[in-house]
Amino acid sequence: MLLEYDGTGFNGWQVQPAHATVQQALEDALEVLVRYRPGITGSGRTDAGVHARGQVAHFDLDEPVDTHRMRRSLNGLLPRAIGVRFLEETHPEFHARYDAMSRRYHYYLDINAAVLEASHRVCVRPVPDFERMNEAAALIIGTHDFNAFCRVQSETTNRVCTVTHARFEPERKGFSLLRAESWRFEIVADRFLHGMVRAIVGTLFQIGHHKLDVDDLRSVIASKDRRQAGPAAPARGLVLEHVRYPDEFGDRT
Amino acid sequence: MLLEYDGTGFNGWQVQPAHATVQQALEDALEVLVRYRPGITGSGRTDAGVHARGQVAHFDLDEPVDTHRMRRSLNGLLPRAIGVRFLEETHPEFHARYDAMSRRYHYYLDINAAVLEASHRVCVRPVPDFERMNEAAALIIGTHDFNAFCRVQSETTNRVCTVTHARFEPERKGFSLLRAESWRFEIVADRFLHGMVRAIVGTLFQIGHHKLDVDDLRSVIASKDRRQAGPAAPARGLVLEHVRYPDEFGDRT
Repeated sequence: MLLEYDGTGFNGWQVQPAHATVQQALEDALEVLVRYRPGITGSGRTDAGVHARGQVAHFDLDEPVDTHRMRRSLNGLLPRAIGVRFLEETHPEFHARYDAMSRRYHYYLDINAAVLEASHRVCVRPVPDFERMNEAAALIIGTHDFNAFCRVQSETTNRVCTVTHARFEPERKGFSLLRAESWRFEIVADRFLHGMVRAIVGTLFQIGHHKLDVDDLRSVIASKDRRQAGPAAPARGLVLEHVRYPDEFGDRT
Repeated sequence: MLLEYDGTGFNGWQVQPAHATVQQALEDALEVLVRYRPGITGSGRTDAGVHARGQVAHFDLDEPVDTHRMRRSLNGLLPRAIGVRFLEETHPEFHARYDAMSRRYHYYLDINAAVLEASHRVCVRPVPDFERMNEAAALIIGTHDFNAFCRVQSETTNRVCTVTHARFEPERKGFSLLRAESWRFEIVADRFLHGMVRAIVGTLFQIGHHKLDVDDLRSVIASKDRRQAGPAAPARGLVLEHVRYPDEFGDRT
């Protein structure tokens, strides 16, 4: 299944006692339909408040179903903040997490607070130096131990990720032709650690605001120390856009 | 001033007794700052529930002000659904309505209900035939009496408008490479009548759903009869994106 959700009201993806999570809402809806509770596996956990337009998840059922009808029923049962964009039967061995080759996140920011898309955009002031941030973003590309950008409480032991794309792109023209008003930071990697994108974005903002030099990013990465990186940027601006799988599973997004 | 607003909670632009309107909210905020009530003139009225990202308005003050500070103060006072994107002193003769050369509206629609931008997108089912709708949209371009697309209660007597652009454009790839999932209808004209964009979009949807032929649009226009056009598409999908002025006033969007 291909999922879109507004993460504002959820404590992230992963089921947790006494918290509303996306995974739980999906399992609740599915249970109503099939009368038992198939576990739903996502391509990865999104943190509290983080959104998705291209989350992929799978579950196993005892009997074949009409997936077109099931999608409609799920969308009827789910809270409005979660939408099933696509649902189909796939290879029995398909695993949403283990088969994922890469994930793409976008972080949306504005020079002036957005009104129409306020739930998934963040206003950044003063205007950061985007050229400078893009110089620094280029240093992130490659295979590194990203421990400096991983939440300290994370249980993952392997902290090595390969980032293949990291760049701020203008989205909408600003008031002057010289300056864009809306931007997004795009990042693609084989895997992401807990809180990694937000820590990277927060550090890049410090560089954009001349609190850190571009080259400082090298020593932050080398330090493997979370305290050397900048504070996490707000979850609200972050959207999981796309998860890539091998061609044999098809690409639905 | 350049304005962005989420029209969901407003009864349109124009001040009305006993209704929350955008103009009224702006005049209220301005009055707090200058202690009198300068009337605010917009480039045009937007209907109830219609949004704007590029509404332009002007007002006259008795004394010069620091526009940078005033913009910040206004944004502090205004409801979150209204944002002043830009504010500057302009030619004393500038008139937001009479000097406007053209307006651009976008109508946002999805094949599957959007979650992240649900407040300003509309889900259209079954999937309309976009090629057919674009054939019909081309017939709208030109100078016509648009009475068939004007709300019957409208007080405007001149119903002639010149449409220079009218086209559905894909926004986001769908599940299959053959089909886009998100679209917008773009329309630019020198002026728009009351309810005109929504009536045009509603009529195009009927053509996209094979309830009307492409050529029927010619007879709908020629009829000058609102009952011949389709029902108005929901206000929620419509955004005033841009108002164009002569170069001498600059272009801020």
